[in-house]
Amino acid sequence: MTLLENTINKIYKSDESAVKKAWKRIDNLTKPIGSLGQIEKIAAKMAGITGKIHNSINKKNIIIMCSDNGIWEEGIGSCRQELTADVTNNFTKGITGVCVLSDFYGSDKTVIDIGIKCDINTPGVINKKVNYGTKNMTKEPAMTREEAIEAIEVGIQITDDLCKSGYDLLGTGEMGVCNTTTSAAVLSVLTGISPDLAAGKGSGITDVQLSKKINAIKKSISINKPDKNDIIDVLSKVGGFDICGLCGCFLGAAQNRVPIVIDGFISSVAALCAVRLNPHVKDFLFPSHLSAEPGAKYVMNELELKPMVNLDMRLGEGSACPFAFTIIEAALYTMDNMATFKEAEIDSSQLVDIREDNL
Amino acid sequence: MTLLENTINKIYKSDESAVKKAWKRIDNLTKPIGSLGQIEKIAAKMAGITGKIHNSINKKNIIIMCSDNGIWEEGIGSCRQELTADVTNNFTKGITGVCVLSDFYGSDKTVIDIGIKCDINTPGVINKKVNYGTKNMTKEPAMTREEAIEAIEVGIQITDDLCKSGYDLLGTGEMGVCNTTTSAAVLSVLTGISPDLAAGKGSGITDVQLSKKINAIKKSISINKPDKNDIIDVLSKVGGFDICGLCGCFLGAAQNRVPIVIDGFISSVAALCAVRLNPHVKDFLFPSHLSAEPGAKYVMNELELKPMVNLDMRLGEGSACPFAFTIIEAALYTMDNMATFKEAEIDSSQLVDIREDNL
Repeated sequence: MTLLENTINKIYKSDESAVKKAWKRIDNLTKPIGSLGQIEKIAAKMAGITGKIHNSINKKNIIIMCSDNGIWEEGIGSCRQELTADVTNNFTKGITGVCVLSDFYGSDKTVIDIGIKCDINTPGVINKKVNYGTKNMTKEPAMTREEAIEAIEVGIQITDDLCKSGYDLLGTGEMGVCNTTTSAAVLSVLTGISPDLAAGKGSGITDVQLSKKINAIKKSISINKPDKNDIIDVLSKVGGFDICGLCGCFLGAAQNRVPIVIDGFISSVAALCAVRLNPHVKDFLFPSHLSAEPGAKYVMNELELKPMVNLDMRLGEGSACPFAFTIIEAALYTMDNMATFKEAEIDSSQLVDIREDNL
Repeated sequence: MTLLENTINKIYKSDESAVKKAWKRIDNLTKPIGSLGQIEKIAAKMAGITGKIHNSINKKNIIIMCSDNGIWEEGIGSCRQELTADVTNNFTKGITGVCVLSDFYGSDKTVIDIGIKCDINTPGVINKKVNYGTKNMTKEPAMTREEAIEAIEVGIQITDDLCKSGYDLLGTGEMGVCNTTTSAAVLSVLTGISPDLAAGKGSGITDVQLSKKINAIKKSISINKPDKNDIIDVLSKVGGFDICGLCGCFLGAAQNRVPIVIDGFISSVAALCAVRLNPHVKDFLFPSHLSAEPGAKYVMNELELKPMVNLDMRLGEGSACPFAFTIIEAALYTMDNMATFKEAEIDSSQLVDIREDNL
C-alpha cells in the first residue's frame, strides 16, 4: 500500500464520547446555554480530536507550500512568475504578512519548495520539489498522476514530522502565482460551480484578465476532462503542486489527530480534496477567515464550515491562520477557566437552551 | 455648560492627514494592494485617531456597566432579576466569560454599579448608582431626563479617568437582566425598525416570552412617545442606566481620542446613541463581533461598521471585546513590521488596486 493509501485508511472520526463529555461541562459553565457560540463548539470539537475534555496548545506551525503554475503563460496573472520565488525567499526573512502575523501570535513556519520553477537555495526553504512548475493545463494535464501523489505525500510526510516534533496545532498556507486559477478549476470540477463564479481577481488582475482567466479554466477542464470522482485525477489535470501538498497536510494532520487550520481560498480547496478522500478529515478542520476571493464562500458551504473572522483578507500565505490559532487557544482557555454554575453559586434551573440546533 | 454638553462639543473628527500618510505606507508594504483588508483599515483608522502613523497599545480596559431594568416585572426575562447582582459580583471573582477572555488577552476590567436594584458592597465594583433600577417602562418613563444625563456622565467620567491612567484601548460591556429589551426599544425608536425585528431571545427565553417582550416594547414606545430626534428623551423613556453609561463611555473615549470597542447588541445601541449625539464619535469606534441577537446586524448597518469576528456569541459582558483587542494589536504590529516593496526588493509596478472602493 502507498503512503497515501495507508494514510487515508488510518484516519478515524471524532471521539464522540469525549465530545459528549465536553458538552456536559460546557453547558454547566456560568453563562446562558450556547451563549459563547463557536467558542463552545471549538472546545467541543477539540475534545473529539484529542479524546480529552481539557486541552491546550503547546506548539503551532504554519506549513507554506510554494510552487509555480504553467498556466501563468496564458497572461492571467497579476505579476511576474518569479514573484513565487521572491516571496518564498522573503518568508525566510520574516518580512511578509504571514511572517509578521505568526510572530505576533507565536507560531512557527515551515516553508516548502514543492514545485517552484527555479532552484531555491535559501536556507530555511525545505526542498521537496516534485518538478519545476506544472505544465500549462490549457494544453495538457498540469502534472502526471504520479506527480500528484508524490506532492500529496510530501504534505503527509511534512505533517507527520511536525506532529512527531510536538506541534499540536497546524496551519496551511501557500505561495504560487496563478494558484487562485488552479483552485477555481479544482473547485469547479468537484462541485459543479461555474468557473464564472469560482474565479476571482486573486492578488489583483484587470477585468480583461479575469475574463481570460475564466476562459482558461473552462478550456483546461474541457481539454483534460478530469473525473470529479477521482480526486487524484482532478488534482493532476487542473490542480497545482501547492494544492496537492496542502491536501496531504490535511490528511496527515487528521491521521495524527492534530487540529489543522484552513487559511483562504487555495487552502480550503485543498481541504475539500482531502475531505473527498476521507470524509472524517472534516473532524480535524478549523476554518480561519472568509477570504475576499469570491470562490471561498462556496468551498466553506461545501465543507459546512463557518469562518471565525471576516477581515476581507485575500493575501494567502497562511496569513489568516494566526487569527484562528488565537481564537482556538482563547476558546480552550475559556472553557477550562470559567466557573460552573455550582462554583459560581447561581441557580441555572430556569435557563432555556436557544441554540440554533435546539430551536 | 454641563459635562455632557462640554464633552459633545470637544469631540473632533479623525486626523485626515495622518490617515493619508498611513495609507501611503500601507500601500507600499510587500503585499498586493488592499490584500490585508480590514487589517489595513484598522491601522489607517488608528492613525486618524492618534495622529500618528505608528501606533501600539499600552493598556486595555473593558468597562462593564451593570444595572437593573423595571420592565423585568412584565415576565419577559429568562431569569431572576437578582442575576444582575450575582453576575456583577462574579465579575470581581474572575470566573465569568469576559473575565476569562480578558485575562487571556491581558485586558483589565472596570466594573460599575450604575443602577443595580440592591446595594452592592463587593470590593472591585465601583458604586456609581444613579438609582435602584429603572421604572417599568410599559407604565411610565424608565427614568427621568436628569437621571439619563447623570448616567451618561458617569460613563464620561469613568472613561476620562481611565484615559488619564494611560489606558489607550477601551472596551464596553454590560450586565443587566432585560437589557436586550431596552436596547431593542431604543433601536426601534432611533431607526424605525419594528420591535418584531429588533427584539430577540436574549440570554434565552421561550417563544411565548419573546412575543410578550415584543408587545412590551411596543407598549413602552406608545405610552412614552419618545422623540427620536432627542437622544436623551429616548434613553430616559425606553432605555436603561447601562445603555446611558455606555453611551457616555463612547463620548468620553472620542473626546480623549482613544479607540473604543463595541461588544454586542446593547453596547452597539449605546454607540449609536453616542454617534447621534456627535457623528464624529464614529471615527473612534471599532466593532468586535456580530452578536447572535437579531437586532445586532441592524445597528451595525446603521453605524456602517463591519464586525471583525463572527462567532455566534450572545453573552454580553463585553466578552467579545478581547477578540477585537487582539486583532487591533495584530493589525498595528503587522503594519509596523512588514517590509516595504523597496526593502523586500520586489518590483511593484504591475500591481493593480482591486479594493472594493476602487473597482
